[in-house]
Amino acid sequence: MTAGSPGDGVIRLGRHSYGKSEVRVVKVVRGTDRHTLRDMNVAVALEGDFAAAYLGDDNTKLPATDSMRNLVYALAHSHPIESIEAFGLALIEQFLTIPSVSSARLRLVEYPWERLQLHGEAHPHAFVRGAGERIAVVSGDTSGVLTVAAGIDNVMVMKTTASGWSDFYRDAYTTLPDADDRILATVITAHWTYTEQATLDYEPLWGAVRAQILTSFSDHYSPSVQHTLYRIGHAVLERFPAIERISLSFPNKHHLLYDLERFGIENQNEIFHVTSEPYGLIEGTVERRSVTESD
Amino acid sequence: MTAGSPGDGVIRLGRHSYGKSEVRVVKVVRGTDRHTLRDMNVAVALEGDFAAAYLGDDNTKLPATDSMRNLVYALAHSHPIESIEAFGLALIEQFLTIPSVSSARLRLVEYPWERLQLHGEAHPHAFVRGAGERIAVVSGDTSGVLTVAAGIDNVMVMKTTASGWSDFYRDAYTTLPDADDRILATVITAHWTYTEQATLDYEPLWGAVRAQILTSFSDHYSPSVQHTLYRIGHAVLERFPAIERISLSFPNKHHLLYDLERFGIENQNEIFHVTSEPYGLIEGTVERRSVTESD
Amino acid sequence: MTAGSPGDGVIRLGRHSYGKSEVRVVKVVRGTDRHTLRDMNVAVALEGDFAAAYLGDDNTKLPATDSMRNLVYALAHSHPIESIEAFGLALIEQFLTIPSVSSARLRLVEYPWERLQLHGEAHPHAFVRGAGERIAVVSGDTSGVLTVAAGIDNVMVMKTTASGWSDFYRDAYTTLPDADDRILATVITAHWTYTEQATLDYEPLWGAVRAQILTSFSDHYSPSVQHTLYRIGHAVLERFPAIERISLSFPNKHHLLYDLERFGIENQNEIFHVTSEPYGLIEGTVERRSVTESD
Amino acid sequence: MTAGSPGDGVIRLGRHSYGKSEVRVVKVVRGTDRHTLRDMNVAVALEGDFAAAYLGDDNTKLPATDSMRNLVYALAHSHPIESIEAFGLALIEQFLTIPSVSSARLRLVEYPWERLQLHGEAHPHAFVRGAGERIAVVSGDTSGVLTVAAGIDNVMVMKTTASGWSDFYRDAYTTLPDADDRILATVITAHWTYTEQATLDYEPLWGAVRAQILTSFSDHYSPSVQHTLYRIGHAVLERFPAIERISLSFPNKHHLLYDLERFGIENQNEIFHVTSEPYGLIEGTVERRSVTESD
Repeated sequence: MTAGSPGDGVIRLGRHSYGKSEVRVVKVVRGTDRHTLRDMNVAVALEGDFAAAYLGDDNTKLPATDSMRNLVYALAHSHPIESIEAFGLALIEQFLTIPSVSSARLRLVEYPWERLQLHGEAHPHAFVRGAGERIAVVSGDTSGVLTVAAGIDNVMVMKTTASGWSDFYRDAYTTLPDADDRILATVITAHWTYTEQATLDYEPLWGAVRAQILTSFSDHYSPSVQHTLYRIGHAVLERFPAIERISLSFPNKHHLLYDLERFGIENQNEIFHVTSEPYGLIEGTVERRSVTESD
Repeated sequence: MTAGSPGDGVIRLGRHSYGKSEVRVVKVVRGTDRHTLRDMNVAVALEGDFAAAYLGDDNTKLPATDSMRNLVYALAHSHPIESIEAFGLALIEQFLTIPSVSSARLRLVEYPWERLQLHGEAHPHAFVRGAGERIAVVSGDTSGVLTVAAGIDNVMVMKTTASGWSDFYRDAYTTLPDADDRILATVITAHWTYTEQATLDYEPLWGAVRAQILTSFSDHYSPSVQHTLYRIGHAVLERFPAIERISLSFPNKHHLLYDLERFGIENQNEIFHVTSEPYGLIEGTVERRSVTESD
Repeated sequence: MTAGSPGDGVIRLGRHSYGKSEVRVVKVVRGTDRHTLRDMNVAVALEGDFAAAYLGDDNTKLPATDSMRNLVYALAHSHPIESIEAFGLALIEQFLTIPSVSSARLRLVEYPWERLQLHGEAHPHAFVRGAGERIAVVSGDTSGVLTVAAGIDNVMVMKTTASGWSDFYRDAYTTLPDADDRILATVITAHWTYTEQATLDYEPLWGAVRAQILTSFSDHYSPSVQHTLYRIGHAVLERFPAIERISLSFPNKHHLLYDLERFGIENQNEIFHVTSEPYGLIEGTVERRSVTESD
Repeated sequence: MTAGSPGDGVIRLGRHSYGKSEVRVVKVVRGTDRHTLRDMNVAVALEGDFAAAYLGDDNTKLPATDSMRNLVYALAHSHPIESIEAFGLALIEQFLTIPSVSSARLRLVEYPWERLQLHGEAHPHAFVRGAGERIAVVSGDTSGVLTVAAGIDNVMVMKTTASGWSDFYRDAYTTLPDADDRILATVITAHWTYTEQATLDYEPLWGAVRAQILTSFSDHYSPSVQHTLYRIGHAVLERFPAIERISLSFPNKHHLLYDLERFGIENQNEIFHVTSEPYGLIEGTVERRSVTESD
């Protein structure tokens, strides 16, 4: 560290950031025939030349988090919002115009809304909210580096067969029997990072990646959650050259065979009890070899 | 204590019940070509001759809540579960065979699962969970009275126009301006009670009632949440003679116009901020006249 | 039904109410030496002459829920708030001055804050939030009837011994063994109703009732949750003549002995796993005989 | 990358781990006079030679997450659990004996329980749960590196004065006025890392750090949340040489002055409305200079 760095002789301020979370924006585009809708939850985190406020009482370089909120709403108006990724990039650009800000990171969640049907036709301005969430995480700094990541969250899936877990490592604490036909259920959290080359058509890309994840979840016999995770990641990278890595987090939502033999009933993989705790948690990243070489 | 009545001279045990909640059952019907799936959350509450356990230490007339759980799983196996209403009725019948039980009440929640698509076809055994929940509340007693209610929960809907709130009562505490074009958003909770005549085909009925609720939510200009509530209830009763009353609960998920004039931007009902608290809560029951006359 | 009653020939509006929920008010009383603090969550529900809005589009008799919110904040300023019960009564009085309102019901939650210690002394204006919640439910109507109920919510308690469950009813679905030494853990929800005679000193009363509930939870061998529930209710009624009934709801937070014999370890009631689902739910009311006689 | 590394020519498995979350353990130490209680929530994450399961179907090197759970319960029995940090270290040691495991990371949450009072004395075996949570994060690998971090979570604090936010950066999106007397409320999340030298007496240390955090929160006029964050971190490092860094996360639980002037009431910092969204989020690390030099 150079002289003049914040803190006194022995103790210093390390990494720090601040921003506004849970900025809930709904934008309605009021077309003549029908309305379209964006329902977003934006979190802003800024880094920069803020140390004087931490170490003393000089706030002059700190934008208020309230101003960040105002900016999000104002830009939601002026920006077309073709995708939350594109909106995030536009916000980054604005936040980086604040002189003290050196980098900005935005997490945007979009909630899905589907049109209601009215007398057999899609309704022009009435909607019902669907399951799951779309995610974008966009960051940028004053040196011009930009990263764009997208993801899905809270998508719960289940396979009622074609899943097993056997021949695993056994030791003194192993009581679980092998299984070659079990329920596999999880809540998919996936985050993938786009290569930096160019602005992409994020909206259809996101839908295609999501569809690929669901396809790869369901198209094979799963010998382990770990394998299914890798298979999904591999399929996404193979199909989408614009993605350089994908991280997947799979809580194992255990569906356990209920012991009905006590009541003279043979339970042939029909009746399960669902437990929320404890749960297995399997996490992993699949990436292009070139990416990690340079890590 | 006098004979019969529980408690001592001045203090007595009033209404009491006990049971098991959050019994999470998944039933998989393993057809040759494809699996079907029921994902349920069952809560049991029993009333009966239980006072001796409350007033003293005689538990001999109390079934364990653990036994209630076992019964739910066992019956889930032996019962076809054509609907959660029908399953609830079968459970009621079983619980009423316990000698000390005088009445039983079951609340069943069903979580919706949709088939995944694989290469353009509905997958035989892979599913994704949808939004919202289906509810059944079934109760019965040893005198033979049975009531069956059904419902929907956690269905979030929004209209981006065709909703207003004006010419309301104004007093010293009124600061809200009139609005003839606002967002109307709510999370629908609806519970309807079937007439007692006969066993009904609950499965298609539920879907049709749900569709009617969504249609009636979206087919008119809403001068108030109150009016839309009544309109929905009226349409359901008019169309479904098997329903004798419906109760609706509508939290008003406020979407407020964000003040952008401060930044020189005219916000023509395009940019809204969403708040979760406080919220208006509008509740009401719509019923057949004959029903309430006898209340 | 008489002419003019709401609804058409066969379908009518039943019971209905509306109001504002999650009104979050903090009142700081800025004494010279120290501040005191009330942190409340208020829910308002009004009934009255509102049918014209439900059946048609006439809102003229409906106060906006936004006005209700304003009133809560304004009255929080002008009212001393000696207790949430007293504040609730003052709010009721105000809401009943709205010409169309026939009855009002308020649920107030108060969050507990304890003073921080600074250099061994109670801090004049810094606080840390404690566990559990205080509840008041107050209702009144234009005929002059007032009811005041108080309660506690989310108070989790545990006994690690002196609790059992044995000699219960056994049938084909019973697999649970008898237990004469188990953990008893629950989250206490208690609601008690005061007699109508007079305004009471609600603040110390509430603390004394809460203390009695905890004492009665812990002062005996519990042969069943049911018995402990009654014992608590009985003790409260015996000690507090101003209370006419108390309702208690006890979810059984099961702490199950973990099977360690599989690993050659004898588990003498030392190691438990905690499950959140399913759970037993024991509910009951204890009341003065005179009360229920007249029910 | 060396030959034989996982993945095919272009796509490879990146960082991956798996384990068991939400393992809920209660340990009761049954002393002759009184019981003591540990209530823990353990999450295990292991890294190691697991690639064969991800890339193919070879599970032979993977312990089941169910076995991890068993180990946690078994060790909870045999280990004295003087602190969750010490228990975490003992678990790490065990997990590292699994041949394929190269590193283990444990997150342990402890829920606080206070003794109930019975007739003026601390109860020997009855408890009520307090607010807030204690955290330990312990990790280790086969090379012998161990890290021990501790923390607090969900501790909500408030100052009703002696806090301001003024002279901050203003631009076109700034509408917030300066404030020199506002409520400062936050939910403290703090995580601190111990130096590696030796096993520490974690139990009293944790209490002393927690007390210091609360003291430093309340002992000054706060010109910004940022400043208070740094001040807390600095005080902790200054007083506890065994701590090498501390990270703090402070959501700003906004308490906004309610506009009562509209009703002719002057609101002199007395009546506030509480909002949960959006919220400012201020995060930072304070660390010893030596630490970061070597980063």
